[in-house]
Amino acid sequence: MEWIKLVINLKGLVNHLLNRLFFLVVVIGVPLSVIGSLMHWPYVLMFVIYCITIVALAGFMGRATESLAIVAGPRVGGLLNATFGNAVELIISIFALKAGLVGVVLASLTGSVLGNLLLVAGLSFFVGGLKFKRQEFNVYDARHNSGLLMFAVIVGFVIPEVFSMEMAEEQTLSLSIGISVILIALYLAALFFRLVTHRGVYQHETDVVDEHEKPEWSAKFAMIVLILATIAVAYVSENLVHTFESVGERFGWSELFIGVIIVAIVGNAAEHASAIVMAYKNKMNIAVEIAVGSTLQIAMFVAPVLVLISLMFTEKMPLVFTIPELIAMVTAVLLTISITNDGDTNWFEGAILLAAYLIMGIGFYLL
Amino acid sequence: MEWIKLVINLKGLVNHLLNRLFFLVVVIGVPLSVIGSLMHWPYVLMFVIYCITIVALAGFMGRATESLAIVAGPRVGGLLNATFGNAVELIISIFALKAGLVGVVLASLTGSVLGNLLLVAGLSFFVGGLKFKRQEFNVYDARHNSGLLMFAVIVGFVIPEVFSMEMAEEQTLSLSIGISVILIALYLAALFFRLVTHRGVYQHETDVVDEHEKPEWSAKFAMIVLILATIAVAYVSENLVHTFESVGERFGWSELFIGVIIVAIVGNAAEHASAIVMAYKNKMNIAVEIAVGSTLQIAMFVAPVLVLISLMFTEKMPLVFTIPELIAMVTAVLLTISITNDGDTNWFEGAILLAAYLIMGIGFYLL
Amino acid sequence: MEWIKLVINLKGLVNHLLNRLFFLVVVIGVPLSVIGSLMHWPYVLMFVIYCITIVALAGFMGRATESLAIVAGPRVGGLLNATFGNAVELIISIFALKAGLVGVVLASLTGSVLGNLLLVAGLSFFVGGLKFKRQEFNVYDARHNSGLLMFAVIVGFVIPEVFSMEMAEEQTLSLSIGISVILIALYLAALFFRLVTHRGVYQHETDVVDEHEKPEWSAKFAMIVLILATIAVAYVSENLVHTFESVGERFGWSELFIGVIIVAIVGNAAEHASAIVMAYKNKMNIAVEIAVGSTLQIAMFVAPVLVLISLMFTEKMPLVFTIPELIAMVTAVLLTISITNDGDTNWFEGAILLAAYLIMGIGFYLL
Repeated sequence: MEWIKLVINLKGLVNHLLNRLFFLVVVIGVPLSVIGSLMHWPYVLMFVIYCITIVALAGFMGRATESLAIVAGPRVGGLLNATFGNAVELIISIFALKAGLVGVVLASLTGSVLGNLLLVAGLSFFVGGLKFKRQEFNVYDARHNSGLLMFAVIVGFVIPEVFSMEMAEEQTLSLSIGISVILIALYLAALFFRLVTHRGVYQHETDVVDEHEKPEWSAKFAMIVLILATIAVAYVSENLVHTFESVGERFGWSELFIGVIIVAIVGNAAEHASAIVMAYKNKMNIAVEIAVGSTLQIAMFVAPVLVLISLMFTEKMPLVFTIPELIAMVTAVLLTISITNDGDTNWFEGAILLAAYLIMGIGFYLL
Repeated sequence: MEWIKLVINLKGLVNHLLNRLFFLVVVIGVPLSVIGSLMHWPYVLMFVIYCITIVALAGFMGRATESLAIVAGPRVGGLLNATFGNAVELIISIFALKAGLVGVVLASLTGSVLGNLLLVAGLSFFVGGLKFKRQEFNVYDARHNSGLLMFAVIVGFVIPEVFSMEMAEEQTLSLSIGISVILIALYLAALFFRLVTHRGVYQHETDVVDEHEKPEWSAKFAMIVLILATIAVAYVSENLVHTFESVGERFGWSELFIGVIIVAIVGNAAEHASAIVMAYKNKMNIAVEIAVGSTLQIAMFVAPVLVLISLMFTEKMPLVFTIPELIAMVTAVLLTISITNDGDTNWFEGAILLAAYLIMGIGFYLL
Repeated sequence: MEWIKLVINLKGLVNHLLNRLFFLVVVIGVPLSVIGSLMHWPYVLMFVIYCITIVALAGFMGRATESLAIVAGPRVGGLLNATFGNAVELIISIFALKAGLVGVVLASLTGSVLGNLLLVAGLSFFVGGLKFKRQEFNVYDARHNSGLLMFAVIVGFVIPEVFSMEMAEEQTLSLSIGISVILIALYLAALFFRLVTHRGVYQHETDVVDEHEKPEWSAKFAMIVLILATIAVAYVSENLVHTFESVGERFGWSELFIGVIIVAIVGNAAEHASAIVMAYKNKMNIAVEIAVGSTLQIAMFVAPVLVLISLMFTEKMPLVFTIPELIAMVTAVLLTISITNDGDTNWFEGAILLAAYLIMGIGFYLL
């Protein structure tokens, strides 16, 4: 039993160090962001400062959400996680929409889907697989998620793409709005299904989460942190969005590449880290849940919400990706389903997913 | 045991009432169809009368086929069901082909595939799932059917579409004829497989149908009903087909929308009803068999037969759908396979299929 | 036990006769090839002689590789088989590339994928299924291979196709090179996974190959045969490639049809035969391994190696197939995965695959 204590201590230590680092970055990064933007420091420098600051702020938002979720109990907690899990991405995207960068927003949605399905899941399987020969996870959840992935990406994203080719702009927008409402409704139905009508029906005993877990922060403190961090993320995001053009020109990156690779990685860095840690601790259910669950949140909640929010701005966003974006997402979904439907992973399955991410990354870079 | 008797009585009562209703509709609807068409009543009114009459006549054809199938024994009966199951749809389509409405026929085939896979299966899973937490069905059958769906839609329909883009019209027709012959041959092989060489090999014991079932009607009476109803359906269908143009103009419906949504629902109403009743009685094997089996019949028998029949008319029908039709069918097949391959359903899986149907319906409406 | 001896004797007899036939063909075919090409015999005659000679030489190469593999032990042996398994196809393709026939090479890669997945697997399942009602094979291997098929064809081949539509030629080539390197790296990783880190982890006991098998030839003799046969194949292939144009004109075959159907069948004839023999002996694991393993070798090793080799010639080969080729491969992969993922085959599943091959064959013929 000694080594278990050691692992727990070690884990505590790593968490502790990471938390301090994030604290430091926030304490330094937020003021730097304000000063730099007022004094018009070079765009590339500011781009880097903004990105790092957002990653650290996202860490705080994650901890605050988790604390609130534990206090609120599993049902409301699940809802909280489902809503705030991609808050950072949502905030950045709203400011990008406001700045008229519809292409960047669609690209960053694509990037989040690819990043979660291929990069996060791939790294989790690979890193976990280096330690364990075979890792297993709940097949029922994987299949439930497969159906939703198929629905969201293969139906929800493909249909407007194909149908809009023969439609006027107005019809395309109507179709996008209709689909967005349906996607959000089904996302809420999925939460209702998992948290209410079928809670525990498809779960193994080992999946049951320890309900006596203690929150890190009190509800009040967590709430304050959440509000402050959200305000800070909003401020930094608005500035970040305006550096894209200059940074793209400087490095020869297209709008597409910035959205698919850069924004997606900054917006999801916190999840990336925790999924891999979970895989390394052989908690594959949680690792897969983070990767696939986050994808579903992006596709069924963040994307349609952004379509609806965009109606308030001058540039409306239809749910129509570019063909390369769509094909990349469709192939990523098919590959993920094919690899996860046996409920068993190993380092090589991780390598396949990472190789697919690499191929798509090269493709978007060269486009 | 009391409630079982009650349920059986109730079921008998519902069936009895439905049969009386259908009888009434036929007795009133057929003369009205004749009179209205002779006296040139308004198209929209006639369209409604024709549709309702066909649905009721289809009910009679279904009962007659079932009686004959029981008398004929499981093998010939299976063949009868397989051939007459989509007779109404076949008859409407032949008259539409005769009137040169190739686009409507292709659209109604699309609509039947989408309607069976998404609407019928979706309603069955949803309604059944409201009553039962989990419903199970034979995984082997589902997988057997998955392979056939993949073959028919993903190979049989996609290949002529893609290849015909670089072909002259004549080659496209040759390819369509070749594929049609292969589809029909494989459909017959599938019947041979299920009814002869592998009868019962993949079945659970609980699947075995009660072979002592009594037919509703005598063979002679059933035959007469079948012949009369078929003649009546043919007469009404021919008239129905000629109302499409006016109705479309009146309501702003495209040819595509009429075919995909209206004709498909009228042509399949009887099956829709019985699949949902079966799901509600927890007979998921039968519900799934109706939904997926009917799709296969459309894709592997009705569609290729119509291609061959069209060779007798001036307007030939190649097996080439529009791109939105094809993509809608392909995504519906992938979604269905992904959802049914675990042999387990619940209300949420039904909701996914219904949401997909709704999305496609909006798409075809706006197109 | 008598019949077992008989079967073994019979098998030995068939093998013996086949070996003698191949020996005869080589002894006659190679000199005829030399004489005919020097004396400018008619192209069509030479085309036939070259094809038959190559099939027989491929038989010798297969026997030599097998002998060497047994001597070298399972790991190096697996590597040998993986490398030399498609040597004939590789050699023909290199000479076709040298002659600038990029289209034929891509078509023959397509044909190998289709031929292995649909024709070889189809014939194996069908012929095996005529003798046995149900045949089973290792599900883990099938799923492992499914993931790789998805990766290679659905990601590796689709991405360059779609992305290259909006790219300049130079970028397309860069993307092709990048993907080729990744495909080869992952192919080597797959070998490492199966032969080293996870050897036996996913295997049933019955799969374990008899490690006391005796090689047919000594290592030295096998090496000499392999070298001589390779040289002969190279010589005949170079000549064969130059007959394509005339033969195509003579029979009205397009470059595409020659590549997809003719070259693919000649290049894979040896594997075709042994997969079917294995299926008939109810060794489905080996039959499936030959069909799917060979496809993976083509897609993840031969194709990318040819892309890299083509950089040395004036006509570079990007990894960009024609749309019909790509769609045919994608649908073949989806169909195969759908049919093999239950680890169970029968004659009807074979018939489905064969019907799909026939449909595609007609399509390529008419194109």
